[in-house]
Amino acid sequence: MSKYVIGVDFGSLSARAVLVSTADGKEIASAEYAYSHKVMNEHQICSPRALATTALQMPEDYLDALNMTVLEVLEKSRVSPRLIGALAIDFTASNILPILNDGTPLSSLDRFKHNPHAYCKMWKHHGATEEAKILTDTAKRICPEILEPYGGIISSEWCFSKIFETLRKAPEVYHTADRFIEAGDWITMMLTGSDKRSACFAGYKALWNRDNGYPPEEFFGAVDPELRNVVTEKMSGDVCELGEAAGELNEYGSLLTGLDVGTKVSVAVVDAHAALPSVGAVNPGDLMIIMGTSACHILISDKDVPINGICGRVMGGVVPGYIAFESGQPAVGDGLAWVINNCIGSEYEDEARIKNKSIYDLLNEKAEALGVGSGGLIALDWWNGNRSPYADYDLSGMILGITLSTPPEAIYRASVEAIAFGARRLVEGFENGGITVKRIIVSGGIAKKNPFIMQMLSDVLGREILISDLKEAPAMGSAVYAAVTAGAYTSIGDAARAMANMDFNVYTPRAEAKEKYVILYPEYVELSEYFHKTNRVMERLRKLGKGE
Amino acid sequence: MSKYVIGVDFGSLSARAVLVSTADGKEIASAEYAYSHKVMNEHQICSPRALATTALQMPEDYLDALNMTVLEVLEKSRVSPRLIGALAIDFTASNILPILNDGTPLSSLDRFKHNPHAYCKMWKHHGATEEAKILTDTAKRICPEILEPYGGIISSEWCFSKIFETLRKAPEVYHTADRFIEAGDWITMMLTGSDKRSACFAGYKALWNRDNGYPPEEFFGAVDPELRNVVTEKMSGDVCELGEAAGELNEYGSLLTGLDVGTKVSVAVVDAHAALPSVGAVNPGDLMIIMGTSACHILISDKDVPINGICGRVMGGVVPGYIAFESGQPAVGDGLAWVINNCIGSEYEDEARIKNKSIYDLLNEKAEALGVGSGGLIALDWWNGNRSPYADYDLSGMILGITLSTPPEAIYRASVEAIAFGARRLVEGFENGGITVKRIIVSGGIAKKNPFIMQMLSDVLGREILISDLKEAPAMGSAVYAAVTAGAYTSIGDAARAMANMDFNVYTPRAEAKEKYVILYPEYVELSEYFHKTNRVMERLRKLGKGE
Repeated sequence: MSKYVIGVDFGSLSARAVLVSTADGKEIASAEYAYSHKVMNEHQICSPRALATTALQMPEDYLDALNMTVLEVLEKSRVSPRLIGALAIDFTASNILPILNDGTPLSSLDRFKHNPHAYCKMWKHHGATEEAKILTDTAKRICPEILEPYGGIISSEWCFSKIFETLRKAPEVYHTADRFIEAGDWITMMLTGSDKRSACFAGYKALWNRDNGYPPEEFFGAVDPELRNVVTEKMSGDVCELGEAAGELNEYGSLLTGLDVGTKVSVAVVDAHAALPSVGAVNPGDLMIIMGTSACHILISDKDVPINGICGRVMGGVVPGYIAFESGQPAVGDGLAWVINNCIGSEYEDEARIKNKSIYDLLNEKAEALGVGSGGLIALDWWNGNRSPYADYDLSGMILGITLSTPPEAIYRASVEAIAFGARRLVEGFENGGITVKRIIVSGGIAKKNPFIMQMLSDVLGREILISDLKEAPAMGSAVYAAVTAGAYTSIGDAARAMANMDFNVYTPRAEAKEKYVILYPEYVELSEYFHKTNRVMERLRKLGKGE
Repeated sequence: MSKYVIGVDFGSLSARAVLVSTADGKEIASAEYAYSHKVMNEHQICSPRALATTALQMPEDYLDALNMTVLEVLEKSRVSPRLIGALAIDFTASNILPILNDGTPLSSLDRFKHNPHAYCKMWKHHGATEEAKILTDTAKRICPEILEPYGGIISSEWCFSKIFETLRKAPEVYHTADRFIEAGDWITMMLTGSDKRSACFAGYKALWNRDNGYPPEEFFGAVDPELRNVVTEKMSGDVCELGEAAGELNEYGSLLTGLDVGTKVSVAVVDAHAALPSVGAVNPGDLMIIMGTSACHILISDKDVPINGICGRVMGGVVPGYIAFESGQPAVGDGLAWVINNCIGSEYEDEARIKNKSIYDLLNEKAEALGVGSGGLIALDWWNGNRSPYADYDLSGMILGITLSTPPEAIYRASVEAIAFGARRLVEGFENGGITVKRIIVSGGIAKKNPFIMQMLSDVLGREILISDLKEAPAMGSAVYAAVTAGAYTSIGDAARAMANMDFNVYTPRAEAKEKYVILYPEYVELSEYFHKTNRVMERLRKLGKGE
């Protein structure tokens, strides 16, 4: 019986589970649980100095969250565990942790408690910038073909950059680790006892593809002789397609989830990618933008062509049989939160309190009143570096055009505009590469909460955008994968067509704003090119800031 | 008898009078009075839309302030008016007002009450940008030699730019005005009844020099046929040297000041220039920086050489017989106030309150703790455009290097650094032009109140700076000029040597900071050149902001 399935979405700060009906995708119950230790930096673990580039997590927090949320949806829904056909999880990526053969995270061993490299390095851990450069440079020399699907660059956010950072900075952790694993794959391993890797994680984050597997030993050996056998010694070659089963719940997994031993567990999916089936974005030309603390842009395509600055082009990355392109913006909500915390004085905070509005609502109103260009500012949205098109994490944010009469809402508006300009660059990148973007669907926290930003995105893109108000898109998408694993459908496409929520709010561009952004947008592009290519002042400032 | 003299300094928001002993410069009494109408914008006078470029004042406020402050120093000191040898005033510049022959400001006529062009246009009124460009372009074509002492550019802040703006935007005001006059000259005219112009105002702000007078009719005619006779019809050719008498107090002047009819009134001086004699900065190689809401840099020299980007090179501009170079930074305290008001959240405001500190003191401490470069930011200090070396008011402020962990004090620190970098460009400009800067004396509100900024200035300049804690430097300098007018001394130099206050706080550069700024400063220069010359995005944004 597989009347129901469960999807669990692991985000940056919490996990959310949904229990849904397999027939129509209806949500029966949901639950959320925040990670106890949140995001940690080196300071909390070992060092007297907090590094901005460090973002670590405690792996046990994920198991706690899984335990609490699955038990809660079972209890709320009163659905019998025997009616649950499968459990699927999605996870932010790339989050890499070192483990022993039995799955024990090295951070739980006494001897490594104070070693930051023994913890799970989150996607937004940016400590491996130098290692990523060495990997990229070596690949260019030895095997440039492995870079081709990734826009020519290996990101510091990815699997091997993080592993190589551990080898260089904490060789004792590297050598003690039996394996390095994505947090998402680690969860399915803990639940089933078998180390099956997801084609989605492996394809986007570990340079893997179905034809050639991971990069060759010669490449890793040229990077560092000690890294030569990283694939055979520390990884798993057992990579599964999405919708396949990673295994069945073992006793430990059953205890953790309250589900029956033998319940199928799907191969894990990257969280952003899991969102697509939940809204039916499973057809060629569908572009999904998930906008929260950061933004991820995923395009389904039947064309396998190189696109400049893409950070991943993976066959079967979302739907088996189609290419899924991935790119993104590493700070969206995070960047706006920086603006709110640093550029908005107490006067506006008081005004928001008096008017009983959130500071965002107040700023949205004031920024809207300014109109296009009248704030006089332009910004670069690189508070956390640039992922696409440059994959350049030495870049940083900028605000330009400040005068003595610049109001705070102008800074907010310019920051939102910069985010929208960044999104436009990505859409243009696809279309200039010959792939037609037929539909743009936007999801995530900002899409749901901030109509000002959505209207601006439509104005800047100059086209219609569809906003999904689906509350738990990645978790609901995981449920779609689980339905296939459970055998209720034979393909992701069929499952999505039956289960997806396709109620959209439609935003269309306002003619006058659209026209003005045609003038402003090239300024953003010119400044971007200048600071990426011509004047590397941002990189030099970052180095100076680190005392280099 | 001239045992005492009075100096009155007219600043941007208030006037300050000092009554001092002629023999040794000792201050006997001082008084301050704020202008009732402060700074006005068009909005307050006529228009539904406040323009950032508009800064107007009510001329009667100046007379009120003169009246209140001089009466107060007389009363406080109990000095008999007959012991006052002379009264001298200094004034910010260029402040231009249209008047009738008897001195009546047009703004006091009913028919012009709602016309912004009938008011006094303050130095920081930047409405004449376009007119300044036309004047500059025409001069380049017709008589390039008149531009040579001014770095090749006629500023929108100067006399004829403001007059020409009035002709174009309010011809009825232009044609009704019998004269256009500097606010400083207007005060001496009101006190004495005679329209004697100061060589300091005329030399720095009205393209005048002793050999050739004002620019020729052909020039003005080429700018606009209606402007052809502006000099003969609207100005006065009676230009006096500093230290000379503009005249003697008439009955109205006596009533206004409480001084005897017949008391000598010195020719007015630009406020910044008046500060130099007060601290003995009257010798070749002396550079005085007056740092308050804006900064003015004045260098005394015995060499008459062209310097790139100087905004004035006037023989006798401070001391008869020596050249005085002038340049400046149009937003210093104003720029930092913008940062405080817009980039510092309530958290720091609360912290300052709890610690019973000013927000500046708190930020100084936090910014100092960051150290050079560790904030990771670089800024451009062009919140109110750039005066030197570019005289480019289409430029605007910029902050670069922002990351998610950038704290507010980093923005403050980078803003202060940008101000210091701007000052270094000016010093280097002089030295690259072949003029040795022997001493740097810093005065003004920021010099007195903010040791963090003074230490940073020394670190960035890489040299010793002398801070004058003289409370009322321009007013005290005016008193030095008054002493010469009164006949107590035969030269400004002699008077300054007897009366100046030469107690300085000395700041010396810290070796490590100095070395790091040698690395950071070229970044400031490169970005400056880029935004001034290569990418005119700041100008385009300003135009877009104005709806052009």
